[in-house]
Amino acid sequence: MTPNTTRQPVPLPPYLGAAYYPEDWPETEIDYDIAMMKKVGITAARIGEFAWKKMEPAPGQYDFGWLHTVVNKLGDAGIAVVMGTPTATPPKWLSNLHPDVMSVNAQDRPASHGGRRHCCSNNVRYRNASARIVEAMAKEFGDDPYIVGWQIDNEIYSWDGCYCPTCLAKFRDFLRKKYGTVDALNTAWNLNLFSQAYDNFDEIPAPRDAWHNPHLKLEWLTFGNESHVEFVHMQADILHRYVKNGAPVGTDTMPFNGMDYRHLNEKLDIVQFNHYNEPHNEWQCCFWFDYLRNFKSHPFWNTETQTSWNGSTDIGQSIKPDGWCRVNSFLPLALGGEANMYWIWRTHWAGHELSHGSVLDASGRPMHIFGEVRETADLFAKTADFINNTKVCAEVAFHYTSRNWNMHNTQTMVAGAGNDRIPDFYKPLADCGVRVDVIDAHEDLSKYKLLVSPMMMTLEEGDLPARIAEWVKNGGVWIVGPLSDIRNEIGARYPHKPFGMLEELTGAEWLYGIPDRAGQISAVSAQTGEELGSSLWYDIWDEIPENTLAVVRGGHSAIDGKACIIRRKVGRGTVILLGTFLSYDALKALCAAALTEAGIPHGNAEGSLMVIPRKGEPVSANGETVSGLILVEYAGAPAAYTLDRPMKNVVTGETVSGRVTLGGYGILVLEDI
Amino acid sequence: MTPNTTRQPVPLPPYLGAAYYPEDWPETEIDYDIAMMKKVGITAARIGEFAWKKMEPAPGQYDFGWLHTVVNKLGDAGIAVVMGTPTATPPKWLSNLHPDVMSVNAQDRPASHGGRRHCCSNNVRYRNASARIVEAMAKEFGDDPYIVGWQIDNEIYSWDGCYCPTCLAKFRDFLRKKYGTVDALNTAWNLNLFSQAYDNFDEIPAPRDAWHNPHLKLEWLTFGNESHVEFVHMQADILHRYVKNGAPVGTDTMPFNGMDYRHLNEKLDIVQFNHYNEPHNEWQCCFWFDYLRNFKSHPFWNTETQTSWNGSTDIGQSIKPDGWCRVNSFLPLALGGEANMYWIWRTHWAGHELSHGSVLDASGRPMHIFGEVRETADLFAKTADFINNTKVCAEVAFHYTSRNWNMHNTQTMVAGAGNDRIPDFYKPLADCGVRVDVIDAHEDLSKYKLLVSPMMMTLEEGDLPARIAEWVKNGGVWIVGPLSDIRNEIGARYPHKPFGMLEELTGAEWLYGIPDRAGQISAVSAQTGEELGSSLWYDIWDEIPENTLAVVRGGHSAIDGKACIIRRKVGRGTVILLGTFLSYDALKALCAAALTEAGIPHGNAEGSLMVIPRKGEPVSANGETVSGLILVEYAGAPAAYTLDRPMKNVVTGETVSGRVTLGGYGILVLEDI
Amino acid sequence: MTPNTTRQPVPLPPYLGAAYYPEDWPETEIDYDIAMMKKVGITAARIGEFAWKKMEPAPGQYDFGWLHTVVNKLGDAGIAVVMGTPTATPPKWLSNLHPDVMSVNAQDRPASHGGRRHCCSNNVRYRNASARIVEAMAKEFGDDPYIVGWQIDNEIYSWDGCYCPTCLAKFRDFLRKKYGTVDALNTAWNLNLFSQAYDNFDEIPAPRDAWHNPHLKLEWLTFGNESHVEFVHMQADILHRYVKNGAPVGTDTMPFNGMDYRHLNEKLDIVQFNHYNEPHNEWQCCFWFDYLRNFKSHPFWNTETQTSWNGSTDIGQSIKPDGWCRVNSFLPLALGGEANMYWIWRTHWAGHELSHGSVLDASGRPMHIFGEVRETADLFAKTADFINNTKVCAEVAFHYTSRNWNMHNTQTMVAGAGNDRIPDFYKPLADCGVRVDVIDAHEDLSKYKLLVSPMMMTLEEGDLPARIAEWVKNGGVWIVGPLSDIRNEIGARYPHKPFGMLEELTGAEWLYGIPDRAGQISAVSAQTGEELGSSLWYDIWDEIPENTLAVVRGGHSAIDGKACIIRRKVGRGTVILLGTFLSYDALKALCAAALTEAGIPHGNAEGSLMVIPRKGEPVSANGETVSGLILVEYAGAPAAYTLDRPMKNVVTGETVSGRVTLGGYGILVLEDI
Repeated sequence: MTPNTTRQPVPLPPYLGAAYYPEDWPETEIDYDIAMMKKVGITAARIGEFAWKKMEPAPGQYDFGWLHTVVNKLGDAGIAVVMGTPTATPPKWLSNLHPDVMSVNAQDRPASHGGRRHCCSNNVRYRNASARIVEAMAKEFGDDPYIVGWQIDNEIYSWDGCYCPTCLAKFRDFLRKKYGTVDALNTAWNLNLFSQAYDNFDEIPAPRDAWHNPHLKLEWLTFGNESHVEFVHMQADILHRYVKNGAPVGTDTMPFNGMDYRHLNEKLDIVQFNHYNEPHNEWQCCFWFDYLRNFKSHPFWNTETQTSWNGSTDIGQSIKPDGWCRVNSFLPLALGGEANMYWIWRTHWAGHELSHGSVLDASGRPMHIFGEVRETADLFAKTADFINNTKVCAEVAFHYTSRNWNMHNTQTMVAGAGNDRIPDFYKPLADCGVRVDVIDAHEDLSKYKLLVSPMMMTLEEGDLPARIAEWVKNGGVWIVGPLSDIRNEIGARYPHKPFGMLEELTGAEWLYGIPDRAGQISAVSAQTGEELGSSLWYDIWDEIPENTLAVVRGGHSAIDGKACIIRRKVGRGTVILLGTFLSYDALKALCAAALTEAGIPHGNAEGSLMVIPRKGEPVSANGETVSGLILVEYAGAPAAYTLDRPMKNVVTGETVSGRVTLGGYGILVLEDI
Repeated sequence: MTPNTTRQPVPLPPYLGAAYYPEDWPETEIDYDIAMMKKVGITAARIGEFAWKKMEPAPGQYDFGWLHTVVNKLGDAGIAVVMGTPTATPPKWLSNLHPDVMSVNAQDRPASHGGRRHCCSNNVRYRNASARIVEAMAKEFGDDPYIVGWQIDNEIYSWDGCYCPTCLAKFRDFLRKKYGTVDALNTAWNLNLFSQAYDNFDEIPAPRDAWHNPHLKLEWLTFGNESHVEFVHMQADILHRYVKNGAPVGTDTMPFNGMDYRHLNEKLDIVQFNHYNEPHNEWQCCFWFDYLRNFKSHPFWNTETQTSWNGSTDIGQSIKPDGWCRVNSFLPLALGGEANMYWIWRTHWAGHELSHGSVLDASGRPMHIFGEVRETADLFAKTADFINNTKVCAEVAFHYTSRNWNMHNTQTMVAGAGNDRIPDFYKPLADCGVRVDVIDAHEDLSKYKLLVSPMMMTLEEGDLPARIAEWVKNGGVWIVGPLSDIRNEIGARYPHKPFGMLEELTGAEWLYGIPDRAGQISAVSAQTGEELGSSLWYDIWDEIPENTLAVVRGGHSAIDGKACIIRRKVGRGTVILLGTFLSYDALKALCAAALTEAGIPHGNAEGSLMVIPRKGEPVSANGETVSGLILVEYAGAPAAYTLDRPMKNVVTGETVSGRVTLGGYGILVLEDI
Repeated sequence: MTPNTTRQPVPLPPYLGAAYYPEDWPETEIDYDIAMMKKVGITAARIGEFAWKKMEPAPGQYDFGWLHTVVNKLGDAGIAVVMGTPTATPPKWLSNLHPDVMSVNAQDRPASHGGRRHCCSNNVRYRNASARIVEAMAKEFGDDPYIVGWQIDNEIYSWDGCYCPTCLAKFRDFLRKKYGTVDALNTAWNLNLFSQAYDNFDEIPAPRDAWHNPHLKLEWLTFGNESHVEFVHMQADILHRYVKNGAPVGTDTMPFNGMDYRHLNEKLDIVQFNHYNEPHNEWQCCFWFDYLRNFKSHPFWNTETQTSWNGSTDIGQSIKPDGWCRVNSFLPLALGGEANMYWIWRTHWAGHELSHGSVLDASGRPMHIFGEVRETADLFAKTADFINNTKVCAEVAFHYTSRNWNMHNTQTMVAGAGNDRIPDFYKPLADCGVRVDVIDAHEDLSKYKLLVSPMMMTLEEGDLPARIAEWVKNGGVWIVGPLSDIRNEIGARYPHKPFGMLEELTGAEWLYGIPDRAGQISAVSAQTGEELGSSLWYDIWDEIPENTLAVVRGGHSAIDGKACIIRRKVGRGTVILLGTFLSYDALKALCAAALTEAGIPHGNAEGSLMVIPRKGEPVSANGETVSGLILVEYAGAPAAYTLDRPMKNVVTGETVSGRVTLGGYGILVLEDI
């Protein structure tokens, strides 16, 4: 291509960006779009992710000219570019040449050309074609200074898996590698049951067309996601060979926890994340941000969210109130990211998703949200230094792992107690006004004072039981349960004990596990007799009154009056065995007491407030460190926070102290002075 | 056959008829049935539609003797015959010879013998076999004076389409013919998106097994229905060659608008229609009658409705109150038809639908409704002259097209705003006491003073935009929207403007389109501040107060207080841009105001009344013209109408004037004096 | 095997048992499990049903050593053994050798290895392999004195059928045998309708992929279940050849009535039954016990029920209150059985159903219900003599047949009036304080005074119409309807009459049958005018007032005020033609009046009480006969019964008389003194 001789400086993070599909528009429209991006304050455009056919119209024939033009137009206008590899949308010529590239569903039907992600990540012809286009792109754009990041594929994920012969063969290899012998597998999966035992690995089917063994299903889900991880890593290796300007490489993931994001991110430089939360569940994206920031030291990018409403096939959402877009855009920055990007800059004019909220309407006119996006851009600019110079600080950890997610999806304990319930344990904790790191099983615990591990069916990942035991004995406060530590790493129960480690660690004695979906049992405070809004499941403990936090009432005389939440001192630490699901209020009170016990300040927040302490590394020669606090009202109602010290409002420059108030969707960025 | 030498005169319309399946009964039973038909006043029997196997027991071996016997017995008894071609139920020998005749579902499963319409209308072997049986019947019965009409096939319609190889090949030809080049198709469908672009037409799949392009889906639906149209036309051509007695040829259609009924009826002589409406939605069959009568000058036939309840697999309906059957039977006549036929004369004694309401029970005993059917026959007789000598008059038109129906089904704008909502715009209008022609896009507008075009996503059919513009400028009053004129003819948006023609025509400026499924926005009258019960969608206009009929409250500060219903004078006419869905009451008030503006008398009706002005051509040598008014209470509650002139009650001969009252399900047929 | 030389006496019934899967546990665990069984009072273990692979690891290689060990350990400990044939879970080697053994679903997908009952009962290779393992087991264990019963397969049943080529061919043979000629079939099924008629049996399809003829569907359901009956009989024949110790052979069935349990049990010695009822529908298992005990003279075995909750995939139930487990365990004994067995002794530690309620938790610890199971064992012991020496006595019969069940499932008359409604006619009758035999069509009627036949669409089984007529004329009181006698044996209607026999028998004249799903009609007492809570369906009779029990109000003037429940004297008997569905209270009043008319004492029960008179054969040389009464409160609320004579409480030895009270889930076993 003609070298661009008058390069502009590339914008620095934090980015306010948007997905842009120049391949869908006449080139004449692009200048208008860029002018409007500048007007509204967009500083990054995310392009390329679905344009394989336009980059490689026929096998091995590349056309990157149009894409260089777009990159240059954007860059010259001072808009950074995030470049996507287009492997989610292989052209028709690929499946013409190799019909077997198509993924196959559980009814043995190959996917049709016409959507996205219709090829099998394990298919070698698809992998090779993907490698070639990625290499071609990487060679072409690897040293382009306007490109500030790479995105591999798009929303890659495995719900059910692909049932093609390649996948089945690789799945059997996966099992062979893990279990060594088929007898070991038979034993681990208890395959004497139902005469299921296999004589060799090649007999093992994909889990369909039968009421299958849950361990088979768990391994199948794990395998399916690992196949995608392998596919992403293959691309990352190529990009890393050619990308010269330090632009980080990632893949935009989604708010499902079945893929092992730790493994996925090992070869990636940056976590990318797409979400479409709305006012009623806005807090759940905070849960995800608190999770994702821990996988890489590089701040994550929120690569997709809506400005206003999602309209994938038709519009299933509604207009959002004033301020929501600003808060939704700023939360990623507040919680450890450095970018928020909208899907989509301008609604498509034809094809899919013609009703999706955006910044510009398909007609080119600004949507009603245009002004609020402009305000958001201003907020990004004003807070950029503080964001860039500090990181989120947390003293509380909360467990959440891919293995457990898949285990709940293959064999939930009680109907109604699936993965959806896990974030409900997070919200009352965060609402105590403390910051929480949501962590997977491998994360170092030493920096935390309080750990919460609800619904962690298995703890058998990364030597976790031993590390938790040591951490507790050294003074940690651990809230564990309900339904935690009850399975081994493949989801089997312990044949000789109800828990993997809880009894040994605490010395407590478990009596019974009791389901109650009909409200026949209530848990009441052992101290006040107050009902705790409990439900679904009750672990019953043989415990002395002084260690008993709650007892059950009703159900059956064998359990009536016995303990269901107990507290045990262990070494210098404490274990709270939470044997049931509590109401929000009761769980918040339990968390508050545990925070106090752990010596963590809390309780300064009123209302629905994300409280985010931040601290930087020394940033000047004299070792000065920036620190402060971000407060974000996430529910659209008034809130307040009582400061323990005067601080500077980063946006206004004013000094604030004492009890500060925020309106609905209010944001305060406060720096220590 | 032995010629019948003592022919009876054939009854004239209007017909009170019933479907009859003599092939299911021993011949000895037929005389009883005919005697009972005479007793209850049935004047037409609809036969033959499923009896292919009995007419052609083996390929090319015909047996029409039994059918002649039935036709003669009926005709001799003074009962007219409607003869159906049996192509909906091909015999097993056809699929034995040619297994490929079976239609194929989206999972590639061929249909099984054992139901109806299991053969592919595009399959040449099925077409040929159909042509042969139709020709044989036509030769045999084409000059039979007892036969007063022909019905082709039965309830032919395409929901999903057939996925056999023939259909796919023909679909590609259909696209080839429409788009010319595959690049034109790629461009029109925006197939750079998702790398979907095709290199030739033979790559284009049927829309299954992927999240497919909506334009592909729209064309597929269109093609599927056009295949049936072609199949019906093939039969019509044959019948027209042999039918010598002027008996009209039609096909009994259903209340779904995806088939292009205009195209379908081009080669047909008469519209035939089946419906199973009930008291709660009885008004919707009026909507359909107001639609169907406009396709042909010949009065339509309501070929199927229940006497009492539908019992297709089991009974899903209930008994109907007194008078409903009479009203349901008379509405077709009142609204432009000349026949009402029940499904079924006598409930089947074995096989399917053993619980269906009818005139006779399977046992041969009269059903409870027998007396009301007899009353209905009397009403038909007494009003026959007035019905035959007049036609329905309407000054209001309402748009409804097959293209838009299919477009809503492939890419609805807002969840909840699909085709089901369209008749809701009709009811308040009809309840104003005016007659409405529901018309498709091609209908001439010059005879109307008011036109209502709700949810007409595209206007791009038959030069409609230009014709509407001219009509408005010449004085028409047009209520347009919500969600009208927002797509081109394949469902794509306009890349440079929000509407196809609305802004140019009116000079108004659209700002935003806003979804609201959660009730966060209300529209209020700009004059009174009254809430209008709005929902789902809001077009926001930049309009001056004097043109503003309603503004929005809430949602977001960018829209709060801005206009969502505006009124613009255009030439000598008026355009009311209706930007939202209104409550029944608010919409009725809007319609009433528009009727006033259009100079159409209205408002004389109280209650749930279909008001049907009728006027005849000169019917005597002295040029006398019959005219009058039919009033039908359709909801089972008292109603009234204020006459502007004395009129004669056609049934009683009495003169009535002023405010006349009707009981629930009352009918008044009034003639000008 | 090494002969066991120190045989213990085998426990006698009644058995308190549990399913046990020693193949899933290390042998070291088995001694512990047996010790715990002894501790809690378990007297029978049900084993072997899924352990084919462990018994026959490779084709023809048998290993029964481990199973002998288990049987001997159990027997030596004084625990009887019920041995299951493992044919529900064929090993993988079978489908490796013969892939065609797999059953095939309606989409032509063969079942996958990995669940249960995945092989086709009609497949000859599967049948042969099944015969071989059963014969091997029978030879090995046929004379083992510790084995007190055999169970064939597990929960064999046909919902939808298998669509493999073998099944289709056998289905055609089944039709050929029944109908003789295809013309006879065409005529019986009315196949002129829809041109469906077949030219030979080999054209007839399985009912899928079309809107099929209901008679085809009925025969298909019948055939599918008969295939399983044949498979079970094949095993029974083998077992009967080798089992020498008189241990009865059965198969554990389920609470679905589509399989002809009469035919099934012809070659079996004992009825076995699995149910998972809960407090809210506990009474329904009484309905089933009242049905099942009539098929064999040998007392039935309740082979499966839960101790506390079902947890098949996840837990969908809740903890049960005190006493429920005891009542649920005792009801089979009270109502004519001699065993209650829990599923499961100890929850599996891996694989399926890890959350299922049991006696021991997977960890080996007692569940909370352990104490109540122990109490139940004591109750069994104390009442054993009374149970063993008496049988249930009933003077009331209630019709329930497999043919009708399948007929409702293929062509229900009115939506909402399916098989689920049938037991609702039983409950008010049983709550009158009388014992009911639920019988199939073949049962002798002479021992009953009152017969209730609701929703018996067809009576055409086993010469039933003639037998009923004779029985009524001899003095029987028959409540018949609604929806009874309206179809012939294949579900066709009578072309010349509304009923098969009702009009001829009673002389009454039926006018109309009227559906009402919308509550437009009410039935009121002809005597008091009281509303009877009627619904769904109304037969309207032309009846004189003195025979009229209820009339309808509303609906339509043609029926308003006419009779819908009538009473006719017939010979020395009475027929009550029940033309509608009544409320519980109205139906109970109707039953009470009929009981009075039939001369059956009733009405002594207050509350939710199963009242079970029992009487023995002479049991001593002097001809002494044990008799008495069992009262079981089944709903968890106080109840009472007024005795007409002093009786002895079998458990306490006390004498009771007059009005005795029971607490919730109370049980009284009373012996005549």
